[in-house]
Amino acid sequence: MKEPVFDSMEFRRALGTFTTGVTVITARGADGEPVGVTANSFSSVSLEPPLVLWSLAKSAHSLSVFQEAEYFAIHILAANQEDLSNRFASRGEDKFAALDVEDGLGKTPLLSGCCTRMQCKTVYRYEGGDHIIFVGEVVDLVRDDVPPLVFQAGKYAVAARKASEAPLLPAGSSEFKEDFLGYLLWRAYFQFHCEMRKQAPISDLSDQEFLILSTLFHSNWRSADGLCNSVFLDSDREEAARALASLLEKGLIEKKAGDNNVDLYGVTDTGKEKALGLLGAAKATEADFLDKLGTWEGGALKNLLKGFIVETNPGLPHPWERTDNESL
Amino acid sequence: MKEPVFDSMEFRRALGTFTTGVTVITARGADGEPVGVTANSFSSVSLEPPLVLWSLAKSAHSLSVFQEAEYFAIHILAANQEDLSNRFASRGEDKFAALDVEDGLGKTPLLSGCCTRMQCKTVYRYEGGDHIIFVGEVVDLVRDDVPPLVFQAGKYAVAARKASEAPLLPAGSSEFKEDFLGYLLWRAYFQFHCEMRKQAPISDLSDQEFLILSTLFHSNWRSADGLCNSVFLDSDREEAARALASLLEKGLIEKKAGDNNVDLYGVTDTGKEKALGLLGAAKATEADFLDKLGTWEGGALKNLLKGFIVETNPGLPHPWERTDNESL
Repeated sequence: MKEPVFDSMEFRRALGTFTTGVTVITARGADGEPVGVTANSFSSVSLEPPLVLWSLAKSAHSLSVFQEAEYFAIHILAANQEDLSNRFASRGEDKFAALDVEDGLGKTPLLSGCCTRMQCKTVYRYEGGDHIIFVGEVVDLVRDDVPPLVFQAGKYAVAARKASEAPLLPAGSSEFKEDFLGYLLWRAYFQFHCEMRKQAPISDLSDQEFLILSTLFHSNWRSADGLCNSVFLDSDREEAARALASLLEKGLIEKKAGDNNVDLYGVTDTGKEKALGLLGAAKATEADFLDKLGTWEGGALKNLLKGFIVETNPGLPHPWERTDNESL
Repeated sequence: MKEPVFDSMEFRRALGTFTTGVTVITARGADGEPVGVTANSFSSVSLEPPLVLWSLAKSAHSLSVFQEAEYFAIHILAANQEDLSNRFASRGEDKFAALDVEDGLGKTPLLSGCCTRMQCKTVYRYEGGDHIIFVGEVVDLVRDDVPPLVFQAGKYAVAARKASEAPLLPAGSSEFKEDFLGYLLWRAYFQFHCEMRKQAPISDLSDQEFLILSTLFHSNWRSADGLCNSVFLDSDREEAARALASLLEKGLIEKKAGDNNVDLYGVTDTGKEKALGLLGAAKATEADFLDKLGTWEGGALKNLLKGFIVETNPGLPHPWERTDNESL
């Protein structure tokens, strides 16, 4: 046999380019001991009869149990079950400790909270190099409509439907491409705020006033400088000052002297009421948009935005973090 | 044999909760005819020796070719190869027409542009209900660092690394949750613009002025109303008017009478120069942020933002679309 022209590490990397879900596969030994392993080698085989397969290393502790088990259960994990995946991927002694386990066919231990749980009857065991391929006939299944956990290039991931290829921009706009990130972020933010404003009684607030009011609602008694550093671009300080004056005039915020003789701004009761209205409108808009986008896509978008915010933060203060200078 | 307690449609749906990559698998018949099928039943089997498997329906036209072929090639498709996936999933006569094909081992047709291409020697063919399971030993592989195509719940998808679980907000901020979409969109946009402003000579432009200048750069000669409807919230018209006046004063835009006696605004040569500086800064910021976020994640984020913008657009005009009222 010719030696392959790639090493084992490169082979693993190549396999990692095939994205997969993550499963935990369980069975019960003749002695009553439950076993379980994390596997991403799951694959569908046949529709009629309904067959699926997965592979287990010949070196696995649980091999003999799976070899002898009449039944096994495949749990396709949900996006929030990373812990369960890690637990069954480790070599720990009691993987089932403190887990809520139900007994299935042949007393197979069944886990809950998954996307899909399939109870299978072992129909074939095939030779597969350093692994055994188990083919099972699915005799029972339960499915829940929750987003699945994904594994890609050796890391946990989330997946979301591809956007349609329909162009977002009218033809002829050639310079700023439609996939320019700055544009996409601005436009998504703009659409969200337009919709939110339709739902909230805030037609009398400018965008700056809205930003200040919602920031103070979560982090009261801030200085003009603190607010500016948190939520305004350097160039917008003049407008921020105008917005503060306007909010004071409308009785939505008030001013008092803090330590160091710095003026601090806080929301009044009227301002709080207004902010609660904003919060309600924001939540309604979010629910509406997530409904339009799809829950899975919404979750993936939030996940990516969080990653974006963490990875690209150039050291900006958090909007609701008060500085020492803002003590009362 | 007991009838399963679920129907074939439900079984398919359950299988769809296991996310997969997409492969095209090819071989060449004894008569020289190339065959190829799209499959997501690929799975890794063994590391030593390097084995992989996939399943083919017994009813497939190409079954006999794969049954007899000594070699086959597995192409793990890249995110931009949806067309290739559709082509080989169809029953068309000449799936290879106009494709750039290379000959591999046993003259197996090899496609290009994939994430990974594995040339395999058939080592086992196993019974699998209405399918045959093909196990191949990988004898050659080529891998490219491009994002893979993903298939989930019956649709094409993209996947991206899960964001770390580190909280984005300081402890104690309970109301607006850190996964509130409105906040995430604003913050991501804000960070982008802060960074862009560091790189561009625009410290003398307010955010409103920036928005107007970049809009006019792509869509010259617009009315104040047209601009407001495109890029401002209703409540910000006063500030928009201030920004227009300030840009005129700085000589970055000019004004002339259009049809219907409506004043139209356009960028001056100085304004164009400034806008080009902005464009450069925006591109540099994008490159920097995508580098920090990772190219795959960046692509997935853009994809989701595009979907978001299309799905949730409440009928807002495109920023660069001129209305009839804005004709010269």
